[in-house]
Amino acid sequence: MSEFLIARRQYAPQSPVSLTALEASSVSEPAIGLDATDPAIAALFPQMARHPLLKISQNDAAASGLEPLTKKTSLRVGAVFSGGQAPGGHNVVAGLYEGIRKLHPDSTLTGFAGGPAGILKNKAIPVTPELIATFRNTGGFDLFGTGRTKLETPEDFATCARIFTQHDLDAFVVIGGDDSNTNAAFLAEYLLETGHKTRIVGVPKTIDSDLRGPFTETSFGFDTAVRVYAELIANIAKDSQSGKKYYHFIRLMGRSASHITMEAALQTRPNVALISEEIARDGMTMSGIIDLLADVVIRRGNAGKNFGVVLVPEGLIEFVPEMRALIANLNEVISGHQDYMDSLRGFTAQIEYLAGRLSKESAATLATLPLDIQRQMIMDRDPHGNVALSQVETEKLLTELLTSRLGELKSEGHFHGKFSCQTHFLGYEGRCAAPTNFDANYAWSLGLTAAGLAASGHSGYLAAVHGLTMTPDRWQAWGVPLVSMLTIERRHGKDKAVIRKTLVDLEGPAFQLFMNSREAWAWDEHYQFAGPIQYFGPAGLVDRIPVSLSVQ
Amino acid sequence: MSEFLIARRQYAPQSPVSLTALEASSVSEPAIGLDATDPAIAALFPQMARHPLLKISQNDAAASGLEPLTKKTSLRVGAVFSGGQAPGGHNVVAGLYEGIRKLHPDSTLTGFAGGPAGILKNKAIPVTPELIATFRNTGGFDLFGTGRTKLETPEDFATCARIFTQHDLDAFVVIGGDDSNTNAAFLAEYLLETGHKTRIVGVPKTIDSDLRGPFTETSFGFDTAVRVYAELIANIAKDSQSGKKYYHFIRLMGRSASHITMEAALQTRPNVALISEEIARDGMTMSGIIDLLADVVIRRGNAGKNFGVVLVPEGLIEFVPEMRALIANLNEVISGHQDYMDSLRGFTAQIEYLAGRLSKESAATLATLPLDIQRQMIMDRDPHGNVALSQVETEKLLTELLTSRLGELKSEGHFHGKFSCQTHFLGYEGRCAAPTNFDANYAWSLGLTAAGLAASGHSGYLAAVHGLTMTPDRWQAWGVPLVSMLTIERRHGKDKAVIRKTLVDLEGPAFQLFMNSREAWAWDEHYQFAGPIQYFGPAGLVDRIPVSLSVQ
Repeated sequence: MSEFLIARRQYAPQSPVSLTALEASSVSEPAIGLDATDPAIAALFPQMARHPLLKISQNDAAASGLEPLTKKTSLRVGAVFSGGQAPGGHNVVAGLYEGIRKLHPDSTLTGFAGGPAGILKNKAIPVTPELIATFRNTGGFDLFGTGRTKLETPEDFATCARIFTQHDLDAFVVIGGDDSNTNAAFLAEYLLETGHKTRIVGVPKTIDSDLRGPFTETSFGFDTAVRVYAELIANIAKDSQSGKKYYHFIRLMGRSASHITMEAALQTRPNVALISEEIARDGMTMSGIIDLLADVVIRRGNAGKNFGVVLVPEGLIEFVPEMRALIANLNEVISGHQDYMDSLRGFTAQIEYLAGRLSKESAATLATLPLDIQRQMIMDRDPHGNVALSQVETEKLLTELLTSRLGELKSEGHFHGKFSCQTHFLGYEGRCAAPTNFDANYAWSLGLTAAGLAASGHSGYLAAVHGLTMTPDRWQAWGVPLVSMLTIERRHGKDKAVIRKTLVDLEGPAFQLFMNSREAWAWDEHYQFAGPIQYFGPAGLVDRIPVSLSVQ
Repeated sequence: MSEFLIARRQYAPQSPVSLTALEASSVSEPAIGLDATDPAIAALFPQMARHPLLKISQNDAAASGLEPLTKKTSLRVGAVFSGGQAPGGHNVVAGLYEGIRKLHPDSTLTGFAGGPAGILKNKAIPVTPELIATFRNTGGFDLFGTGRTKLETPEDFATCARIFTQHDLDAFVVIGGDDSNTNAAFLAEYLLETGHKTRIVGVPKTIDSDLRGPFTETSFGFDTAVRVYAELIANIAKDSQSGKKYYHFIRLMGRSASHITMEAALQTRPNVALISEEIARDGMTMSGIIDLLADVVIRRGNAGKNFGVVLVPEGLIEFVPEMRALIANLNEVISGHQDYMDSLRGFTAQIEYLAGRLSKESAATLATLPLDIQRQMIMDRDPHGNVALSQVETEKLLTELLTSRLGELKSEGHFHGKFSCQTHFLGYEGRCAAPTNFDANYAWSLGLTAAGLAASGHSGYLAAVHGLTMTPDRWQAWGVPLVSMLTIERRHGKDKAVIRKTLVDLEGPAFQLFMNSREAWAWDEHYQFAGPIQYFGPAGLVDRIPVSLSVQ
């Protein structure tokens, strides 16, 4: 174990629901309507449709007439990581474990290995105090592992029920994103309907921070991941400013929403940061984006500055109208012919096959793209046969189109500078960093909250910790009915109940702050250098929260 | 200015030549022969051939009969950054400035903007205490900027002499790598020969750490850059171990030598780290490298592990015999026909042109490479028309060849696992990080040493600080004759005096440590997680030195 890990394991996460206070806390139902208001959702969830919001607080349980969380009997709880890694996951487990053990010393926690598939395969891992001591405050999901298997069929649910019964679980905690928590809601409904005792609790996890609600300001892991990206962007910006010869185009992970890119921009102040949601709102085409970039390069070039930094959200191309249409058309055409496509050896054969089948518009759009991007879109497909958007090097697409545009402008006498560039993709570099104090505290608090919900006997709730701009002792612990987060969305031609991804709010204060600053950032070097995450040292460095959260 | 920078500027770098002690120090000539022993070098440097080694120490100057460094007159010194950025550059300038000001309060320092070209254009930047306070302990070279212009012709030297005379400079400090210090030696000789008073002092700078000698254990910046890479490799390894579905191939910056890759491997313990020098020694072909990688993937797959981390040094392909021959052949064929090649629009036309001109062996090698790699080798040429090796995505070359090999092995029944991969290139992410305590101390000490050399009146010396495994108060300050580092090498068909790049010593203790450990690292997950650079906190975290240095 490295000296860093040895030093970091000594950090005691902070929480509103302190360990000693948890047993004196109770769960109340404030008069805030948060149940499923959509009749279609209510119809899908008859057991849970009227679920009230829950508040876990350290009020005087006896005086309030509420039952305190402490139970005479021990709790048997299970837990699983679902989906992509996010810093803080181990602290959720630590909070959960320490919470249920504080409520009753004989309580047990069982993890399932390798994500939801581990439940079906009954790959159980008993949690011990030693395991928690080793993993507390560390990044990664290696305590249990994780996976992307979706549990959504009645057969899956029946197997879960059988495994939960076999382990005699009072509650089961799903640490996951929007899809995982949607499926957790269906599993909760199933277990209630079939009279199983296991209660389901969800914990909001995703570095993308697209799982938001009135009581969920952000998901854990976002703060840490963005700080790693901001560290690297600041280093690259400093490099750009020192050498004065390259534009750096940096694509940032984040499946659809541009929260990561916007937060990284607020922390580092690059010359340009593209925000997918704004591009979609304005119906900006790829050519329009290149215009915008060319304008910045030309004007900076006129000022003798042939360098700069541009941030690109991973999900960009899905928000550009003609690209979105092309992707949909490709998915449609390839769908059902995937095996045949795969049997065509090589790019040329595949593109010839597609030629007569794509719409005229899509074919025209495809033809404007550089060959390597065409190849990525057509050949790097996901297991469902769809275009694997995360494999498309959007940063290279932009630099290739921009290079060619600037070449034309130069020959026409409109561009007098130089344009050389380097491209980067930052994603896996940040998902497993050791959680910042904020994420360590937040995740631990979520774990304690999940313990409280597990003890309270309610099912189908998302653990939520609110008031995150305040110090952790003032945060509030809630149980949000999962049904209140669900909405009907049309996916793959079918109506589906889903937790809708929360995109960047273009009217919100964070985007407004960005919008009001970016003109200045474009022309001059306002690059901010906040250094790597500091886990030791002055409070101003170690106890920070995301900028986009602080301005809410 | 960010809170990080505000907190970090308060760090007081440590040095053997303390500011107060510097004025009481003297320069002595120990009886160690370090002058130019090669007659060809001696012939090129008649003024400097017999230069002795110098030692700066705080002995009792009066008792030893040596003149103390303190002068009655002030010093006028110039300085320039040359070549790629390295963390600590600003501390060299800080040490130099504070050193000459301590020796005489009226001393001045003038920087030249944008690298060596800034001397020719007389782009002078006067250094002030405020400027030093702002830049001390920060990364980047943005204080002066930098550039790669080589000053090597008599005309360049004459212009330098004129500019130096115009500024009445007593000394000029070149902060640069092997090429820059080679040219500094020629400039020093020219100035001595032509009777100019400006003394030349070099400072060893490169994150590659390939500028070594008996008194130069490493160059400043290496420690910081590798720690950033190690932070990210550890995060990626944790990701790989959590999700258990990807091999991550990570290419690391470092022009020729594999020091960065080896140090990063010692810090993070990946499953495989390729070391170019070993591959060259063993005459390993690309096919042999793929064999080695396939063996690891197959054996890990048999153990149910379809994930891992592989480090790839940037310079790799130049060390693989058939690739080296191909590159040389391409450079030779393209040389002199660059304009014509450029006039051929597109890859197909260019490769057809080359087809009949390459040797049979080179054409065969080229044909084994994936198309995008062929394109990078042929079309991404440097300004001299040569293959731009840093633009070749060697990590993708390896994964494409490996994917295809594993496909064959699978169909033959020899591979039963899965192979999915992600590729990364880490370079610009680390060159401008804020220097670690080690680099901050080392660079500041080099600056103070340069101040001592400037005051001592000697020219053509490299500032050297030795004994780096000890605490900074026990380091020793030296002036190493540049001529002693020069050797004759054949480059582009001509004999040239150069400072030879120091490659990884395959008999040295660092490589031996790596070699003895790697078998274990290949099969099990020994990944080390040291976290990001900590600038505040426990001494064990903030005061580290590179592993490869500590085992010397």
